[in-house]
Amino acid sequence: MTSLPIPNRQPGTPRPLGVAAIGYAFMGQAHSNAWRTVANHFDVPAFEQRVLVGRHAEAVATAAKKYGWSETATDWREVIARDDIDIVDICAPGWLHAEIATAALAAGKHVLVEKPLANSLAESESMVRAAQAARALGVRSMVGFNYRRIPALTLARRLIADGRLGTIRQVRASYLQDWLADEESPMTWRLRKETAGSGALGDIASHAVDQVQYLLGDTVTEVSGRLHTFVTERPGPDGPEPVTVDDAAWATLSLAGGAVASVDVSRVALGQKNALRVEVYGTTGSLTFNLENPNELYFLNGTEPIEVQGFRRILVTEPEHPYISGWWPQGHVIGWEHSFTHQIRDFLLNIQSGTDPSPSFEEGMGVQHVLAAIEASSAAGGATVAIPALIPLSKD
Amino acid sequence: MTSLPIPNRQPGTPRPLGVAAIGYAFMGQAHSNAWRTVANHFDVPAFEQRVLVGRHAEAVATAAKKYGWSETATDWREVIARDDIDIVDICAPGWLHAEIATAALAAGKHVLVEKPLANSLAESESMVRAAQAARALGVRSMVGFNYRRIPALTLARRLIADGRLGTIRQVRASYLQDWLADEESPMTWRLRKETAGSGALGDIASHAVDQVQYLLGDTVTEVSGRLHTFVTERPGPDGPEPVTVDDAAWATLSLAGGAVASVDVSRVALGQKNALRVEVYGTTGSLTFNLENPNELYFLNGTEPIEVQGFRRILVTEPEHPYISGWWPQGHVIGWEHSFTHQIRDFLLNIQSGTDPSPSFEEGMGVQHVLAAIEASSAAGGATVAIPALIPLSKD
Amino acid sequence: MTSLPIPNRQPGTPRPLGVAAIGYAFMGQAHSNAWRTVANHFDVPAFEQRVLVGRHAEAVATAAKKYGWSETATDWREVIARDDIDIVDICAPGWLHAEIATAALAAGKHVLVEKPLANSLAESESMVRAAQAARALGVRSMVGFNYRRIPALTLARRLIADGRLGTIRQVRASYLQDWLADEESPMTWRLRKETAGSGALGDIASHAVDQVQYLLGDTVTEVSGRLHTFVTERPGPDGPEPVTVDDAAWATLSLAGGAVASVDVSRVALGQKNALRVEVYGTTGSLTFNLENPNELYFLNGTEPIEVQGFRRILVTEPEHPYISGWWPQGHVIGWEHSFTHQIRDFLLNIQSGTDPSPSFEEGMGVQHVLAAIEASSAAGGATVAIPALIPLSKD
Amino acid sequence: MTSLPIPNRQPGTPRPLGVAAIGYAFMGQAHSNAWRTVANHFDVPAFEQRVLVGRHAEAVATAAKKYGWSETATDWREVIARDDIDIVDICAPGWLHAEIATAALAAGKHVLVEKPLANSLAESESMVRAAQAARALGVRSMVGFNYRRIPALTLARRLIADGRLGTIRQVRASYLQDWLADEESPMTWRLRKETAGSGALGDIASHAVDQVQYLLGDTVTEVSGRLHTFVTERPGPDGPEPVTVDDAAWATLSLAGGAVASVDVSRVALGQKNALRVEVYGTTGSLTFNLENPNELYFLNGTEPIEVQGFRRILVTEPEHPYISGWWPQGHVIGWEHSFTHQIRDFLLNIQSGTDPSPSFEEGMGVQHVLAAIEASSAAGGATVAIPALIPLSKD
Repeated sequence: MTSLPIPNRQPGTPRPLGVAAIGYAFMGQAHSNAWRTVANHFDVPAFEQRVLVGRHAEAVATAAKKYGWSETATDWREVIARDDIDIVDICAPGWLHAEIATAALAAGKHVLVEKPLANSLAESESMVRAAQAARALGVRSMVGFNYRRIPALTLARRLIADGRLGTIRQVRASYLQDWLADEESPMTWRLRKETAGSGALGDIASHAVDQVQYLLGDTVTEVSGRLHTFVTERPGPDGPEPVTVDDAAWATLSLAGGAVASVDVSRVALGQKNALRVEVYGTTGSLTFNLENPNELYFLNGTEPIEVQGFRRILVTEPEHPYISGWWPQGHVIGWEHSFTHQIRDFLLNIQSGTDPSPSFEEGMGVQHVLAAIEASSAAGGATVAIPALIPLSKD
Repeated sequence: MTSLPIPNRQPGTPRPLGVAAIGYAFMGQAHSNAWRTVANHFDVPAFEQRVLVGRHAEAVATAAKKYGWSETATDWREVIARDDIDIVDICAPGWLHAEIATAALAAGKHVLVEKPLANSLAESESMVRAAQAARALGVRSMVGFNYRRIPALTLARRLIADGRLGTIRQVRASYLQDWLADEESPMTWRLRKETAGSGALGDIASHAVDQVQYLLGDTVTEVSGRLHTFVTERPGPDGPEPVTVDDAAWATLSLAGGAVASVDVSRVALGQKNALRVEVYGTTGSLTFNLENPNELYFLNGTEPIEVQGFRRILVTEPEHPYISGWWPQGHVIGWEHSFTHQIRDFLLNIQSGTDPSPSFEEGMGVQHVLAAIEASSAAGGATVAIPALIPLSKD
Repeated sequence: MTSLPIPNRQPGTPRPLGVAAIGYAFMGQAHSNAWRTVANHFDVPAFEQRVLVGRHAEAVATAAKKYGWSETATDWREVIARDDIDIVDICAPGWLHAEIATAALAAGKHVLVEKPLANSLAESESMVRAAQAARALGVRSMVGFNYRRIPALTLARRLIADGRLGTIRQVRASYLQDWLADEESPMTWRLRKETAGSGALGDIASHAVDQVQYLLGDTVTEVSGRLHTFVTERPGPDGPEPVTVDDAAWATLSLAGGAVASVDVSRVALGQKNALRVEVYGTTGSLTFNLENPNELYFLNGTEPIEVQGFRRILVTEPEHPYISGWWPQGHVIGWEHSFTHQIRDFLLNIQSGTDPSPSFEEGMGVQHVLAAIEASSAAGGATVAIPALIPLSKD
Repeated sequence: MTSLPIPNRQPGTPRPLGVAAIGYAFMGQAHSNAWRTVANHFDVPAFEQRVLVGRHAEAVATAAKKYGWSETATDWREVIARDDIDIVDICAPGWLHAEIATAALAAGKHVLVEKPLANSLAESESMVRAAQAARALGVRSMVGFNYRRIPALTLARRLIADGRLGTIRQVRASYLQDWLADEESPMTWRLRKETAGSGALGDIASHAVDQVQYLLGDTVTEVSGRLHTFVTERPGPDGPEPVTVDDAAWATLSLAGGAVASVDVSRVALGQKNALRVEVYGTTGSLTFNLENPNELYFLNGTEPIEVQGFRRILVTEPEHPYISGWWPQGHVIGWEHSFTHQIRDFLLNIQSGTDPSPSFEEGMGVQHVLAAIEASSAAGGATVAIPALIPLSKD
């Protein structure tokens, strides 16, 4: 791979990369926290948190102060036009992703965009085209499937890629939450199809599907799926309103390499708080993981004598483990938020080295295709739906 | 309910119930062990282990001696004709269930038959008809879904029936084993469709489906499913032979009461030994269970203050728990095999009190219908298949 | 070792070994159940459950019927005098152990005695002398530290003996129960020093101390300890009575080989039901165990690459594991009670082969010495107390 | 309590508090990270990270850049003399604590000092005197037992203080690590008595002892203890050198309120990485915690019906839980390092409100007294040693 020059940068005049972030709600806070933290722990190219962008001037000012952004703005168009901005980090809601990302890429800015890539396949495609055009000019793009950078899951990928599990046969991925378990929990934009696109499917099944493809280094070819809404009405300001997205989803996925994965997700699984669980079963080894204990990976080596075989709990906090050399001594666990810290570290290193980040927009669109196929299958009573085989997985 | 006289028994001349068991392989051993043990721990009507029946005279003699059967026989027809036999316990392979059970019921013997009820729906129906005719004469019948009598699962049913979980929304049931993970594991009758009927589906998904219906006291109305065989050839005595049953199965089930259940099973999930896991999510509480730790039930009470909410590990070994008063002091766990001990206890008590056991043959056929629908859905690429709504759940 | 003839048995006229059991309370039931079960699962020499002995004729008759003893008796002296009795299994309270065991051994009967060996060191010594005299005549004796035959703990011993842990540095053994947590729980003979000898110390610390010595194949040389009674009065029939034994005990033990063990036990640890936990830390590996999940052993292999190191959960249900070939297929767990089944199997095999069982009375007395030293240390405010170094560990 | 004016500050001219930190090794990094992070998540008075102090100019410059300190210095005396410094955070090794802290307090600076308070009791006393003198002038001081601010342990304290456990009978506290398990791990200043004071005792038993006193709101009155060094020589630059501190320690502690606590710690417990485990048993409830899963607290409510009693896993990530409202939505766990973030938040709030922080230097000295008594008891072969009853626990 060739190291391309950083755009808008003249050789010999290095200056810190200028970063703008758009959005300051939950994801905006998580990304801001990562920008604020990353250089404390990792050697990354110099950068500055220049501008935080949001619609409400006062709120964005408060947020900017908290997370160390130098300036604020309410118009993202002005910001992406600025010469001193090199990176645009898009944490706005999904329906804004396509417009902002294509504009920013066209302006020669490196773009990190939160998952899911977009709310529709059409939007995703426009983003992929923009990313491909920009890539040819050395402009980088990445979609924020941050859980790839949980050290335990990065280690899982490494063990699988190294053949420690043999040929993978089955994956069981689920993501269970309960923040909608209470039927009196009020109506929001997240529960309307026109604003959210889908419910648990886009929000959390997207993570599960990405993990399946990431861990196996493989792509889904066809699916059968089902969506269900358990609470069909919720209180709005003027009385009950219909919920038009799913509370839960189930699917089986066929992968090109022959594995079969099941995915099921729910936002009404009472008592499960953030349980992204992944189980991978191969011919010579197996792995399990649960995001509620993100520093642990369970690994079974099926080639050992049966007398001492068993799932071992690896506390993924050793210097030999991915990303951990930037952190604390062994046994001192890190939190959920640092999946974002690692994501930004890698994104910055990609920019520095002139290499393409992963997950790419193509990978993000690949996940969108799988989600769309699950939705189509559900509408067809579970009938198998094929995934268009267009999207090459980027190398890593 | 009316207490009917025990057949072949004259009032005033009580004699111990005579028991014959047919089969001495894995299930035959498990049942024999239960007959041998039940009276040590529970007050049951007097009975005698009279005859153990098997095809190979020598092997059956060895088994009979081990498990305390007084006599042996190789012809089950002769045995069910004997006047001193009141109970026939059928542990023979599934393809023999219908013939033996219908003959024994016709001969006025109480029948306990191992699950699955039969290998085909047609056979199941003949058995149900035989059971209904016999029932009218006070002859009892039961199908051996023994996991209903694991104390933790009996407790789970009780908590759900008592409303501790509110309205059930979701069930996640899986049954993972790995005894076929090795692709060099040889061909057997269990891997041929003509002898086994199906693979993981009939063998272990049957338990998972029964649990779904048992715990919720509800019936499945429609399913979408998928079967898959990962190892399509296995070594036979004369070279590779094709495997014609499934290694794994996945399904979503709709229940009459509105809940949705997922079921997935595998016999190639490396490292999982006997992991029947059940998770039940209701509007006010949740439960989880894993058969590899059968003395534990995890319960979350969603009505408590959020500050102290969490899944609690109930060690189901207190005298207040189902069946435990027959066992040891608290904390002294019991094994897998006593699900059979409890099953025989209850079967004997049903005979004594003249009441109908549960699960009935109708319930066994209900499970068969669900399995058949999963198979049909799989053949149709996942399309939804409805369950004929004929089978009333017996009361308990 | 020389295989001695079975006493009272003429060559060429083999008859089943005649067994008498004394006591039918909790331990009597557990032993009876084991006698009833052992031959179902293991190849053992022929034996017959001839006589159950107890003080109350009616109660012993009921118990005998439940557990399959042919006869009952109220006078143990008559029973041990019978020619058709070869084995005496002593489940009576501790204060009767010495008298019965010495008489039975003198009568040429093989003796299995429940732990602890006796209530006093003086009694223990008389029993050891009796056992040594009898041993010279081919009469076998064993003390019932049944947890040595929990398959997971037998496996633990094997892994340690095979050097899988390197040199052992530390052991942490605790035994926590809560059946005395309620201060209204009434006064019993177990809470009076004159009948029980001690409280948690003799009852459960004895198991913990035995495990330390068993697992390491080593002996304790000195101790520092503390006893404490949290509930100093309990309701008796005529008002409050003083509790004169300990509710809890703590000790550190030095072992001859250089390891240090801590032991702590309690019967008021609310929520802990039967938690005998053992942790063993060596130079190259570690093990942990908890009796509430007795089919699991956790093992860490410290010689593996750090990246994949971790405690693995071994589900000790494989045919390769100790005792399991007599049981069920993998993953089908067994209960607490089968530690007794295995104990009787091994005792019978020792009798058959003319070898000495372990744990011997000497080993039982070794544990008593440690317990006495803990008590002495506690009385001396924790000062170190040495163990008399007289008792050789029997080989196994 | 009276809110005193912040020293060196004139009414009406608020300026950010100036902070200096001394030390940039492990603890220096952890504290710096907390200073860098705290305002992102919590409303705290304005402050500036002014100066990082360390002996090696180059290394301290690198560290300062990473963690956002404006300036660096190599002479702490000059720094504490500066008018623009209000807070001195001491992360230097223990043998420097007393000198720096007393000087800083005398200069009117608020002082946060890492635990243990000092290496000797004499030093601790001088620090307490300095703190008391400063306190009278409104100058605040705090010792860094950061684990009190792990949300799960703060919640534990709250539940105990609220009476949810009834009267506490027993505490079991242990802290197991393995970073010294390898006997080839080289000699360092931490393994010499003259520099480190003690080994595992001061390093990690200090945390365990502090937790016992903190959680119970009680003080230790007497102890019996033992220290042991398993690896007595380690490689130095010029060959083997003697290790003069303990690898492991064990103790029983009596508390004024009648509870008994056991404490045991080790740095050679192979496979245990950072396992500070605490178990608290009361008359009506119990708690357990393990620092390797710091977001979880296990709670048993002994007043519930026995049928559903069990230890529940509380995932301490709800907004209702201590400190969590500053973090992420439920289920999104935080890491070890934020115990320091919370500590600094509270320290800043104490400064703002003119209240005294806890743990105070007196509390830190209380822990030192217990550690010294354990050491004395060990030297006396385990004999009980009383704690001088001088140190009142500060209120909170």
